[in-house]
Amino acid sequence: MTLKAALLSLTVGLAVTFSSASVMAKPADEPIQPIQPAKVKNVGLVELGKKLYFDTRLSKSGFISCNSCHNLSMGGTDNLKTSIGHNWNKGPINAPTVLNSSLNVAQFWDGRAKDLNAQAGGPIANPGEMASNHTLAVEVLQSIPGYVAEFKTVFGTEKVTIEEVTKAIAAFEETLVTPNSRFDKWLKGDKKALKADEVAGYKLFKDSGCTACHNGAAVGGNSFQKMGVVEAYQATSPAEGRVGVTKDEADRFNFKVPTLRNVELTYPYFHDGEAATLPQAVDTMGRIQLGKKFTPEENTKIVAFLKTLTGDQPNFKLPILPPSSDATPRPTPFDK
Amino acid sequence: MTLKAALLSLTVGLAVTFSSASVMAKPADEPIQPIQPAKVKNVGLVELGKKLYFDTRLSKSGFISCNSCHNLSMGGTDNLKTSIGHNWNKGPINAPTVLNSSLNVAQFWDGRAKDLNAQAGGPIANPGEMASNHTLAVEVLQSIPGYVAEFKTVFGTEKVTIEEVTKAIAAFEETLVTPNSRFDKWLKGDKKALKADEVAGYKLFKDSGCTACHNGAAVGGNSFQKMGVVEAYQATSPAEGRVGVTKDEADRFNFKVPTLRNVELTYPYFHDGEAATLPQAVDTMGRIQLGKKFTPEENTKIVAFLKTLTGDQPNFKLPILPPSSDATPRPTPFDK
Repeated sequence: MTLKAALLSLTVGLAVTFSSASVMAKPADEPIQPIQPAKVKNVGLVELGKKLYFDTRLSKSGFISCNSCHNLSMGGTDNLKTSIGHNWNKGPINAPTVLNSSLNVAQFWDGRAKDLNAQAGGPIANPGEMASNHTLAVEVLQSIPGYVAEFKTVFGTEKVTIEEVTKAIAAFEETLVTPNSRFDKWLKGDKKALKADEVAGYKLFKDSGCTACHNGAAVGGNSFQKMGVVEAYQATSPAEGRVGVTKDEADRFNFKVPTLRNVELTYPYFHDGEAATLPQAVDTMGRIQLGKKFTPEENTKIVAFLKTLTGDQPNFKLPILPPSSDATPRPTPFDK
Repeated sequence: MTLKAALLSLTVGLAVTFSSASVMAKPADEPIQPIQPAKVKNVGLVELGKKLYFDTRLSKSGFISCNSCHNLSMGGTDNLKTSIGHNWNKGPINAPTVLNSSLNVAQFWDGRAKDLNAQAGGPIANPGEMASNHTLAVEVLQSIPGYVAEFKTVFGTEKVTIEEVTKAIAAFEETLVTPNSRFDKWLKGDKKALKADEVAGYKLFKDSGCTACHNGAAVGGNSFQKMGVVEAYQATSPAEGRVGVTKDEADRFNFKVPTLRNVELTYPYFHDGEAATLPQAVDTMGRIQLGKKFTPEENTKIVAFLKTLTGDQPNFKLPILPPSSDATPRPTPFDK
C-alpha cells in the first residue's frame, strides 16, 4: 500500500467514524472546519496585488487580467468549461476558483505550483493564456509612474521584479477567503443556520464517504486523487493530471481535489468542466468515485447542503489602475 | 453657411472672446464648465445596472461584459486602438470612454444611438462584440433567480425585458461622472489647484481654438465635427462617421468630438486609436484641425492642462453577481 493509499484509507476511515457521530457535534469533531477570516499583514502589499490582479497590461493583448478567468464577481472563476485565452485560445482545463486557494496543498489541477506565489507568474507567460512574458510584464510596470511609486512604498525599491509582482498578487489572493457561510455558522453552533434538508444532506455527504476527499477548511484542496476510482471517467480534456509533474504513472489522472467552498458559484465542475450543474456533478462523483447511485431525493439533499458552503464574497472597491506613461509598451493583441 | 458651420464659427468666436478674459474669470465666463456630481434617483435601478454592466453572461461567450471594453478600472476604456470582441474579433473603431458619456449629444462615434439607453443594447447583439442577441440575453437573465428577484423589486414584475436591461445599464452609466478634477476646483475659484504651466496650457488651449469643439462640462461630446478640417486625416479605421447615420455626404468623416475629461486615462486617441500618447494627439489635432504647429513647449503646456481634467474615478464595491441556475443557458464561446 502506497503512503497515499494509506492516507486515503485513513481519511475514509476517519470520515466513517465522524459520520456515526451526532451532527450536533462540535466543529472539532467534524471533517469540515470553518474558514478563518484573512489576517492582512501588509495592507500596501495587498492593495498593490489587487491592482495587478485586475491589470490587463500584464497580458500581451492588454485585454486579459487575472480577473478575466478568476472573476471575483463570479465565485473566482469564469464559469466556462475551459478558459478563453490570448487570441481566443481554448484552454485545456477548467479554471479553478481563486477563492480560498491559499488553503490548497498546491496550485493548478496537477499541483505543479507549490503555492500562490509560484502560480501567479504562470498565466502571464503562458502563450495560450495572457501570452506576455516576465521581461515585458516588468518593463510595462516599470514604465508606469503610479506603480513605481507603489512598489517603492511596498518593497523599498523602485526596481520592479517579477518576484515582487507575484508576491503582491499572492498576498492579495490570500485575502480571498470566504468565511461566514451558513454551514460555518452551523458548525460553530448556530443550529438555526441550516434547514433540516441541508443537515440531512450533510449527513448523507459524510455517510457516503464524500468527506474522504472533501474535508478540512476548504472542503477539498488538500490532496490529489484519482478521477474515476470505481468507474473510469471519460474526460473531454487532454489533461493527464499529477503524472505530468511527478512522472509517476501511478499519478496518471490524479487531480487536486477541488474545494467545495462556494461551489454554487463555481460551475461548471470537474477539470474538464463537463458537469454543468451540481446535481450532475454529485451524480457523477457518487458513481465514479464511490460506486453509489444517489436517488433523486438524496441528490437534492446533498446539493442543498453544498449550497450552504457559500461564504462572504470579495468585499472591496473596484481598483483604479495607474495610467500608462508615454513610454509604456503598448499592447499588441493582433500581432502573430 | 450651414447651421453647423455657423455654430462652429460662433463657438470659435466665443472661445476667442473668452481667451482674452482673465483666466481668473468665474466658471460662467469659461468655455468649460465643472462636472456636476451624479444625482441618483433610483438606487435599486443603478445597483441592478451595475451588476448587468459587469455580467459576462450577456455575451455569447460568457467572457465579455460591458466592462471588458469600457473598463472602469482604466478610465472607462480598454486602452486599445480598437476593441477585441467575440472570437478575438478586431473592432473597427476605438471604444470611447463610458465616463461622463451621459453628457454626450448622442452615443457612438457616429451618434447612431440617441442616448445611453439606446446604446446599451447594441454591443450585446453585435456579432463582432458580445455576439449574443436580445432574446438569449433576456432568457439568460430570466433563468437566474437572483436577477428575477431584483427585476421584480425594481420594475414591479418578474418578467425581464431588454428595455429593462438597457434602462438599468443606462441608469448605472449615468452615475459615472467624474467631478472634482483639479481643473474644476480651479474653475470654481481654488486658484492653487493648478500650477502655472497648467494655467498657461489652458490659456493656450483656448487661444488656439481647441475650445471651439472641446467645450462644455465634458470638454467635448456635444457636437459632430470633421476629422481633418485643415489637412486630411489618414485614418487606419474604415469608419466613415456621421454620414452612415444621416446619409448626408456633408457628414462624411464627421465624428462626435470626444470628451477630454480623464483624457490622461483614455489613451490611445482618435476614432482609430492611432495616437498613442497625448503629445501625439495634441500635435495632430493642432495640425489637421487648426493648421497650427505647436512648439514642444506649447505641446507640453497643453498636455499639462489636459492632465488636470482627471476627476473622481468610479468609487464602488466590485459587484457580486447572482449565480446561474441549472436552467440557465450556458455560454458557447467556441461554437461557430
